[in-house]
Amino acid sequence: MLTLGFVSAILPELSLEEVFATASETGHDCVEVMCWPLGKSTRRYAGITHINVDELGESQIDEIHRLQDKYGVTISGLGYYPNALAPDREEADAAAAHIKKVISATAALGLDRMNTFIGRDWNKSVDDNWPKFIETWLPIIQHAEAEGVRVGIENCPMSFTADEWPGGKNLARSPAIWRRMFTDIPSEYFGLNYDPSHLVFQQMDYLKPMRDFSDKLFHIHAKDVRIDRDRLDEVGILAHPNEYHSPKLPGLGEVDWGKFFSTLTDTGYRGPVCVEVEDRAYEGSLDDRKSALRQSAAFLRQFIA
Amino acid sequence: MLTLGFVSAILPELSLEEVFATASETGHDCVEVMCWPLGKSTRRYAGITHINVDELGESQIDEIHRLQDKYGVTISGLGYYPNALAPDREEADAAAAHIKKVISATAALGLDRMNTFIGRDWNKSVDDNWPKFIETWLPIIQHAEAEGVRVGIENCPMSFTADEWPGGKNLARSPAIWRRMFTDIPSEYFGLNYDPSHLVFQQMDYLKPMRDFSDKLFHIHAKDVRIDRDRLDEVGILAHPNEYHSPKLPGLGEVDWGKFFSTLTDTGYRGPVCVEVEDRAYEGSLDDRKSALRQSAAFLRQFIA
Amino acid sequence: MLTLGFVSAILPELSLEEVFATASETGHDCVEVMCWPLGKSTRRYAGITHINVDELGESQIDEIHRLQDKYGVTISGLGYYPNALAPDREEADAAAAHIKKVISATAALGLDRMNTFIGRDWNKSVDDNWPKFIETWLPIIQHAEAEGVRVGIENCPMSFTADEWPGGKNLARSPAIWRRMFTDIPSEYFGLNYDPSHLVFQQMDYLKPMRDFSDKLFHIHAKDVRIDRDRLDEVGILAHPNEYHSPKLPGLGEVDWGKFFSTLTDTGYRGPVCVEVEDRAYEGSLDDRKSALRQSAAFLRQFIA
Amino acid sequence: MLTLGFVSAILPELSLEEVFATASETGHDCVEVMCWPLGKSTRRYAGITHINVDELGESQIDEIHRLQDKYGVTISGLGYYPNALAPDREEADAAAAHIKKVISATAALGLDRMNTFIGRDWNKSVDDNWPKFIETWLPIIQHAEAEGVRVGIENCPMSFTADEWPGGKNLARSPAIWRRMFTDIPSEYFGLNYDPSHLVFQQMDYLKPMRDFSDKLFHIHAKDVRIDRDRLDEVGILAHPNEYHSPKLPGLGEVDWGKFFSTLTDTGYRGPVCVEVEDRAYEGSLDDRKSALRQSAAFLRQFIA
Amino acid sequence: MLTLGFVSAILPELSLEEVFATASETGHDCVEVMCWPLGKSTRRYAGITHINVDELGESQIDEIHRLQDKYGVTISGLGYYPNALAPDREEADAAAAHIKKVISATAALGLDRMNTFIGRDWNKSVDDNWPKFIETWLPIIQHAEAEGVRVGIENCPMSFTADEWPGGKNLARSPAIWRRMFTDIPSEYFGLNYDPSHLVFQQMDYLKPMRDFSDKLFHIHAKDVRIDRDRLDEVGILAHPNEYHSPKLPGLGEVDWGKFFSTLTDTGYRGPVCVEVEDRAYEGSLDDRKSALRQSAAFLRQFIA
Amino acid sequence: MLTLGFVSAILPELSLEEVFATASETGHDCVEVMCWPLGKSTRRYAGITHINVDELGESQIDEIHRLQDKYGVTISGLGYYPNALAPDREEADAAAAHIKKVISATAALGLDRMNTFIGRDWNKSVDDNWPKFIETWLPIIQHAEAEGVRVGIENCPMSFTADEWPGGKNLARSPAIWRRMFTDIPSEYFGLNYDPSHLVFQQMDYLKPMRDFSDKLFHIHAKDVRIDRDRLDEVGILAHPNEYHSPKLPGLGEVDWGKFFSTLTDTGYRGPVCVEVEDRAYEGSLDDRKSALRQSAAFLRQFIA
Repeated sequence: MLTLGFVSAILPELSLEEVFATASETGHDCVEVMCWPLGKSTRRYAGITHINVDELGESQIDEIHRLQDKYGVTISGLGYYPNALAPDREEADAAAAHIKKVISATAALGLDRMNTFIGRDWNKSVDDNWPKFIETWLPIIQHAEAEGVRVGIENCPMSFTADEWPGGKNLARSPAIWRRMFTDIPSEYFGLNYDPSHLVFQQMDYLKPMRDFSDKLFHIHAKDVRIDRDRLDEVGILAHPNEYHSPKLPGLGEVDWGKFFSTLTDTGYRGPVCVEVEDRAYEGSLDDRKSALRQSAAFLRQFIA
Repeated sequence: MLTLGFVSAILPELSLEEVFATASETGHDCVEVMCWPLGKSTRRYAGITHINVDELGESQIDEIHRLQDKYGVTISGLGYYPNALAPDREEADAAAAHIKKVISATAALGLDRMNTFIGRDWNKSVDDNWPKFIETWLPIIQHAEAEGVRVGIENCPMSFTADEWPGGKNLARSPAIWRRMFTDIPSEYFGLNYDPSHLVFQQMDYLKPMRDFSDKLFHIHAKDVRIDRDRLDEVGILAHPNEYHSPKLPGLGEVDWGKFFSTLTDTGYRGPVCVEVEDRAYEGSLDDRKSALRQSAAFLRQFIA
Repeated sequence: MLTLGFVSAILPELSLEEVFATASETGHDCVEVMCWPLGKSTRRYAGITHINVDELGESQIDEIHRLQDKYGVTISGLGYYPNALAPDREEADAAAAHIKKVISATAALGLDRMNTFIGRDWNKSVDDNWPKFIETWLPIIQHAEAEGVRVGIENCPMSFTADEWPGGKNLARSPAIWRRMFTDIPSEYFGLNYDPSHLVFQQMDYLKPMRDFSDKLFHIHAKDVRIDRDRLDEVGILAHPNEYHSPKLPGLGEVDWGKFFSTLTDTGYRGPVCVEVEDRAYEGSLDDRKSALRQSAAFLRQFIA
Repeated sequence: MLTLGFVSAILPELSLEEVFATASETGHDCVEVMCWPLGKSTRRYAGITHINVDELGESQIDEIHRLQDKYGVTISGLGYYPNALAPDREEADAAAAHIKKVISATAALGLDRMNTFIGRDWNKSVDDNWPKFIETWLPIIQHAEAEGVRVGIENCPMSFTADEWPGGKNLARSPAIWRRMFTDIPSEYFGLNYDPSHLVFQQMDYLKPMRDFSDKLFHIHAKDVRIDRDRLDEVGILAHPNEYHSPKLPGLGEVDWGKFFSTLTDTGYRGPVCVEVEDRAYEGSLDDRKSALRQSAAFLRQFIA
Repeated sequence: MLTLGFVSAILPELSLEEVFATASETGHDCVEVMCWPLGKSTRRYAGITHINVDELGESQIDEIHRLQDKYGVTISGLGYYPNALAPDREEADAAAAHIKKVISATAALGLDRMNTFIGRDWNKSVDDNWPKFIETWLPIIQHAEAEGVRVGIENCPMSFTADEWPGGKNLARSPAIWRRMFTDIPSEYFGLNYDPSHLVFQQMDYLKPMRDFSDKLFHIHAKDVRIDRDRLDEVGILAHPNEYHSPKLPGLGEVDWGKFFSTLTDTGYRGPVCVEVEDRAYEGSLDDRKSALRQSAAFLRQFIA
Repeated sequence: MLTLGFVSAILPELSLEEVFATASETGHDCVEVMCWPLGKSTRRYAGITHINVDELGESQIDEIHRLQDKYGVTISGLGYYPNALAPDREEADAAAAHIKKVISATAALGLDRMNTFIGRDWNKSVDDNWPKFIETWLPIIQHAEAEGVRVGIENCPMSFTADEWPGGKNLARSPAIWRRMFTDIPSEYFGLNYDPSHLVFQQMDYLKPMRDFSDKLFHIHAKDVRIDRDRLDEVGILAHPNEYHSPKLPGLGEVDWGKFFSTLTDTGYRGPVCVEVEDRAYEGSLDDRKSALRQSAAFLRQFIA
């Protein structure tokens, strides 16, 4: 019913084939494949290109299918997480254009899930971002509808450190905002790439939204998070979130994964659940990151069989 | 010390051999085999006949033993869960008679555990059911003593929906009633098929009874349950229980399985622990039900090795 | 903003004047006055007649007003809690008729709050009671509208002991049922006499309904309740509720009164909060019951000034 | 050991004498008196002038002392809460100048406690505010030392609504920042006007800082706060705080006042505890606000005798 | 039903008349009067003589009765808390002899409650103390029976600091030991002076014993205690208890007084509840101790009216 | 990053080769090997000699290395847990001397971790043990420095039953004492063999010390513990700890292993985590103990991959 995978961003130095090989070795069924445009990355976990959609022709597609068969691994979806509402118009336009390309590549590969962020001008309020949101996203979703690809917006506030202050770089952080998004751009192809950890650090219930938005769950990220109470007691929630919480592997944080999968399976969700490794304790080396993948798989296989 | 199995009722379309094969494939050591009389089932999970005790001769017994050896799977006990105190005398008498047959079949197969319900006339109070309870069950337990078979009563209230209202179809729902049962029919062959989930939805401690009734734990059902707080807040405990709780696979509900097995092993219990799959999210197809068995095994193997 | 009072049922042996005097002595502002028809009471706390509405003329009304002035005590509302849906038609009709009389008396006294139960045929399901509910209550509420009196239904399940088994004697036990009541008989004069304790023993949130039904809070009963866990662990929620819980004075139970008044004042409620003393530990003598009134007042004055 | 009072800002329409009379009537020992400069207020609870320090001569001082004696009420301290780090230089300078005047007035009245905010340019980070903080506050604290007046900074983030977004209008929101403040401007005359409610909504421990900063507790505000979980679950902590919490009277929120006073008295604190009424449910009229004062006093007298 | 008082040990410098006057001024109904023999005290709270039972003749008794009437205060019982099982035989014998005298004085004053400790040789195990316990206490209880005085043993381990290490100076610390005491010396005159705080710091349920020993509750001490988690985390429960907990006034610690009085009144207890002030924060001066008495009374009057 | 093993003491009847074989069969990477001197054991789990360091020459070392290779199992460290501060000087001296030998053997085997206890004269206070602690341990640690072996002190109070009463047989029970130890004997070769279960039964936070002593975590014991609340409520924390708690396999007790490994990996710890089986329910036979090892491995592999 569910398949287990990981987000390829954690393996930037590997080729797509090596990523598939690693998935197979570490006990995964699938991979969410990063599709950033070539060029240099600017933030952690960004800028990775495991499939270059700018050069995706028949032969590349055939090769990707062959690799999937060879390693017994599928692609859960294509991923690209830029800021399509960045204050720099050139950056924003490039992001929106490449999102559309990744959507088309998704369809070309015979897949139907593409994951991304909404983006945000972090210096402006939610309200002040709204007109640009509509203007940018209506055509993207129309494109997705035409391609038959469901776009899953990850619910990450992208608001962790000083350079994302004050507003963060992704509007889609809360149920209140999702309601507004889905009301203003109603489409069966516009939904969520749901990650419970982002609600945990925002001190929110992460189970209720799964019931409330059960038809919008397009893809799942399994990330965990630990609230560092001793730090929180010093700085409070108004500080940058990275001052008081730590992303962790599934099972090493606050998420009650039994309750999570209990609710998820009840919503009728069938599909991929991909670990997003962002646990600093496991990032020392490629070996450590592979350990993280093995450990996550061992932990999550209690709930995905 | 403990063996892991499942209740065969979840695989009604399979033959006994196929059930054993499934047990083997999904990582189980044993199976509680359903032995309803042939005929049409009236409620969910009832009416399944994996062994027809009405036609259990030498050759059938040999075949069953052969199949166990072939698949490396044992039978944890025979199961049959009718209402031997049903207000319809014919139904009640037939149930009691068939319970005795299943007890004899248990012995014939060289086993010593048979599981069932007490039953109840659901329109009457516990007190008003009591004379019929004594009258019906004294001879059954005497028969079990003669056969050397321990009868484990599942502690399910059988009170979930409108058609079981008001009293439910099984008296044996609580420690207070078990004390009364075991006082009025004292026998080393009369005990419990203990399922913690039924105490959870009744808002009761499910660990203390394991200490208090440690010598009455004859067989264990590993079922979990989720209290649906949003529903409970709407309807309250006086509503039909299915309006506010959901049976779930082990690990997907309220039961703290670490504490459960901690207490269980301390009581000195050695024997089968059988998953009873009644999780609606995993009942869409035979494949889904097999997933449920695999997942339950993966989860419970943390505690049964 | 809020006034503090008590339900007169706890002082059955006193006259109305003595009830007012007791209110004054024990630190209360008001009293909910019981108005049963004369005759013998059948259950605990029922059958009390501090105002006989069958003989309420001008002179009686003047006298009641004089007594209020004399003792500096007001009437929060008139109360009468029979079973207008009793299976015995005569009993049901008499109850409905007297409810109407108490409503008229309320108006005659210049008041606008009357409190009662919906009633229930306890042998039938909620659904099976519904036609009779509509038939009985539509004319009562029409009468209340004509008199300008708001009828507050106490949310008590009246389901505590064997003689109320199985269904209890009052339909209005849960938000789910209130929604149905207020949908089928929509009226600004049909609301709740809200008592949080009844939700506590039903294992429900008692704060959320105050927000959800903020415009239906016509009168408040301040009763507390203690869940007796050691008993609940023995008998479970399917037993008669009095086997596992105990009504208690405010502050001696599970209700978080700070949160209760916090939510209540935020709804915009302004009006009476009446203690309903049903704590067996304080019922040994009239002196004990007066102690109960003094103690409740001392406790609740933290929140009502 | 402790004295009970309130902040006069809740009674803007009353004269100082009427404020004292109200304190006496509602059961308080003292009042923190607001000393804004004359002129029109810009935000809720600001701009109140119960003592005009611009015109505080001998005769005014004598009159204030006479009124204190007449009503048996003392002044816990003078209060003025502007933004001395406002981006508008004129506003900032005026604030700093008036703070100094209030400090002098405090001394002139024979008192030793003055309460205020640090202020903040809300568009800048904490770091970017720091140089201006030092520049502005060093001379203020030197002035306070000269006058022998202890300046208590209220730990309010002043970050509740859109117009205070993103940074809030007071730097002194957390222990981490207090440490920095007291390290950079070390003085026995520079401390805290400690209000536990602001730590509660920031999801912080409000007891530990009382032990850690026991010598910096100069004055206490008794305000409570309720976290509105249903709202928080919709919007998360990154929304404006007023979207998910509500200031409430003591006893109506999350603060455990028993533990609060337990810790406070153990630190050796002796002095005033002043209720700051900002509970919207009690602001409908002057009578409602007086009810709030009476109720707060009734609640807090459990801990202050 | 209940009366409120305090233990006179907190007022060592006052005469009995001054103690009664203080009780009256601070809102108490009664006092537990300390009756140590004259001589110098050796530990905190010990050695206080408000009634010298060595010189208690008719005239002294009359004077005591006169003072009770004058101040409207009664004596809840006489108290004397030595170590009758001290390893120093002379100390032990003197203690036992004086306990008997205080019992006789209790009867002479027309009272029926005397409170004390069992004592213990702190260097020996509970078992090794047992023979001496029987030998010492059987005659004391026989004397109490003859005098018609109920002896309430306070359940204090007397094990707080290095000089009481390792075993503490009072055997009667736990239900397990009480059962043994009351089995070996069965008497209606041998019971408990129950103080919930001592169970709290021993990490025990303080409500269940009130139900289990409901007929042994002879007198009640209302003391509270705060577990200092930051200290406990450093030193653990094997350290001296004063390193990780602090005695506090009622309402300033861990005891849930609502639940405490809820359970107490349900047991049928009627009688005195005496505050034992041992809160260091309130011991700076006689005024502070009087504040403690006023505050405790204000807090406990919510539950005692 | 982490390796999984067990303490060899649970397999006293097996040879070193059999221990390695068992490790391999039950899914472990390493073993902490017990090195008691030959002779008879005096307490449970003591006196086991899987490597006899008194006879450890070149050939023995080669053989041990060969066995490790053969079974694919490493040695996490050598262990020997005597009482080097025993009141019996001969016992103490023998222990200290053998500790040094085990340290040398550790180095000889090419390892760098040796685990032991500090010891304690259980009849004396911590302070009174201190001079002997310094005298005994300074030379041991100097020896360890010379050998390049890190000595990990297990944080077990060795205070469970009457024969260890009152002080226990190991000083190193709490962070407060560790600070003192590491201050008085500062060395990079003196640290902890950290076992969270011992802090749990002492009612302490077991996560905070891992952050505070992150550079002192030399070796980890994975043992769990269950607080038996029903027993604790009877006897309290002043009773012998075995009266109210039970050592259990990982996952069967109070330890939150997700949080444990989350914190452990964040400290930078890389190395062995060894299960210490002391769960009575799994000690019936060698088969049961092997079940315990298999089950522990199955449970812990969620966190160690």
